[in-house]
Amino acid sequence: MAHEFKTRRTVEFSDTDQAGIVHFSRFFIYMESAEHQFLRSLGTSVSTHMNGDQIGWPRLSASCEYLRPLRFEDEIEIHLFVQRKGVKSLTYRFVFRKDDEIVARGQSAAACCICNPGVPLRAIPIPEFIANQIEEAPPE
Amino acid sequence: MAHEFKTRRTVEFSDTDQAGIVHFSRFFIYMESAEHQFLRSLGTSVSTHMNGDQIGWPRLSASCEYLRPLRFEDEIEIHLFVQRKGVKSLTYRFVFRKDDEIVARGQSAAACCICNPGVPLRAIPIPEFIANQIEEAPPE
Amino acid sequence: MAHEFKTRRTVEFSDTDQAGIVHFSRFFIYMESAEHQFLRSLGTSVSTHMNGDQIGWPRLSASCEYLRPLRFEDEIEIHLFVQRKGVKSLTYRFVFRKDDEIVARGQSAAACCICNPGVPLRAIPIPEFIANQIEEAPPE
Amino acid sequence: MAHEFKTRRTVEFSDTDQAGIVHFSRFFIYMESAEHQFLRSLGTSVSTHMNGDQIGWPRLSASCEYLRPLRFEDEIEIHLFVQRKGVKSLTYRFVFRKDDEIVARGQSAAACCICNPGVPLRAIPIPEFIANQIEEAPPE
Repeated sequence: MAHEFKTRRTVEFSDTDQAGIVHFSRFFIYMESAEHQFLRSLGTSVSTHMNGDQIGWPRLSASCEYLRPLRFEDEIEIHLFVQRKGVKSLTYRFVFRKDDEIVARGQSAAACCICNPGVPLRAIPIPEFIANQIEEAPPE
Repeated sequence: MAHEFKTRRTVEFSDTDQAGIVHFSRFFIYMESAEHQFLRSLGTSVSTHMNGDQIGWPRLSASCEYLRPLRFEDEIEIHLFVQRKGVKSLTYRFVFRKDDEIVARGQSAAACCICNPGVPLRAIPIPEFIANQIEEAPPE
Repeated sequence: MAHEFKTRRTVEFSDTDQAGIVHFSRFFIYMESAEHQFLRSLGTSVSTHMNGDQIGWPRLSASCEYLRPLRFEDEIEIHLFVQRKGVKSLTYRFVFRKDDEIVARGQSAAACCICNPGVPLRAIPIPEFIANQIEEAPPE
Repeated sequence: MAHEFKTRRTVEFSDTDQAGIVHFSRFFIYMESAEHQFLRSLGTSVSTHMNGDQIGWPRLSASCEYLRPLRFEDEIEIHLFVQRKGVKSLTYRFVFRKDDEIVARGQSAAACCICNPGVPLRAIPIPEFIANQIEEAPPE
């Protein structure tokens, strides 16, 4: 049972804006990428099939608090925690660090859904092959 | 004194992801664009100069709650409200609508800073030529 | 029969990079958006259905030549021309102007394909309801 | 003297569009990132200082030819070649491979410029600490 995951990435030029720092929207891409790497580390994916249905995870919410600016070529660590494991949703918490200093904190929640093409999304209980591998992290 | 602003935009193809809906990170771009249009409607900009200094607005926080998915070519309305006018910061609230139905709600806060190249950001009181034009919106 | 289309857009903050100019990759988004507006102006879309099949236009190639940098809040005109109308593909040519000065020139080609989920893309002749409305622009 | 560089990356969810494939504009981000990694592998950067001036590399041109679609979680190799080393510019050629099959080919050219804030870009000869490390690749 996993409840956390760490990954690193280097800030790319296209992540920056004219203020010379990483654009605030990019932190959400960094979070999502960490989340997907976490799921791959468990042998699954954010995009899977089950009984012929396409399973996906549309967002319920996302937030980020920015403490220090990040710049081109900064190497950062993204630390993911499973904050809440619901029946049909997962909430993640993220801590961004540069040189061991916290530069941002984020959160995102997603609902497990059948996402077949051409029909509305429908929330379902998290499939066992995913749910059985994930547990909530201890409180912060 | 302005406390709200409305704008419209059409979902672009590059806003979508393989789930066939607008990627959640794009809502933050939509919010930012509305905020910048609001400032332009007041005759100023998010990127200005004052006494030889570059004035900018780095983010303190941003969040979004997703209620309904948006799709390619959807026409949406973004309704901005000034939620809080601090001495050195502004907090905006956003309501996204499609066909008069609320599809998402967001929030972002930014600090007024001197952003000169090559030196650390420094928060300053909002310049009068901006502050004098903005007031807080009535409570929701 | 249409062979050209003009649209305008304002450079957004998130289009810029730390060099203080529009990131070169954004010109491809601008081109694509102009192309899709052109198709909408003809009453159709880049994403349509025909006989139960999903019709799409994956790219064959794209290029851009950059003459002048663009900056935040610049207002630009994008002028699209149908450069070549093939049996199964369309090639567009684009001229970007700011204040009547040409700042960039681009080109993109796309193949008309059946893009049904879960099966490989398959090129098809351009459906008549699109092909009948488009003609090649006169040589430059 | 280096004339080529290889890197790998995994397609991220936000790289995809509603057609279920990597958006064509993302290949330009992949190229740029490979180019910057190449420069870092030589102990320098695309963003450097020399005698108090900011040195940057605005694009002259960029192009890509798309042979096979890429999908979420595909692992790709990007192979960079120095195609032309001019006095004031560098032209790179890129080959994208998935499972040893070529999926795309690209090219980009950039001019070495002094990019000081607030003044127009000015092209300069490539500084020796960069030029001395790079040579043209043998013809394809």
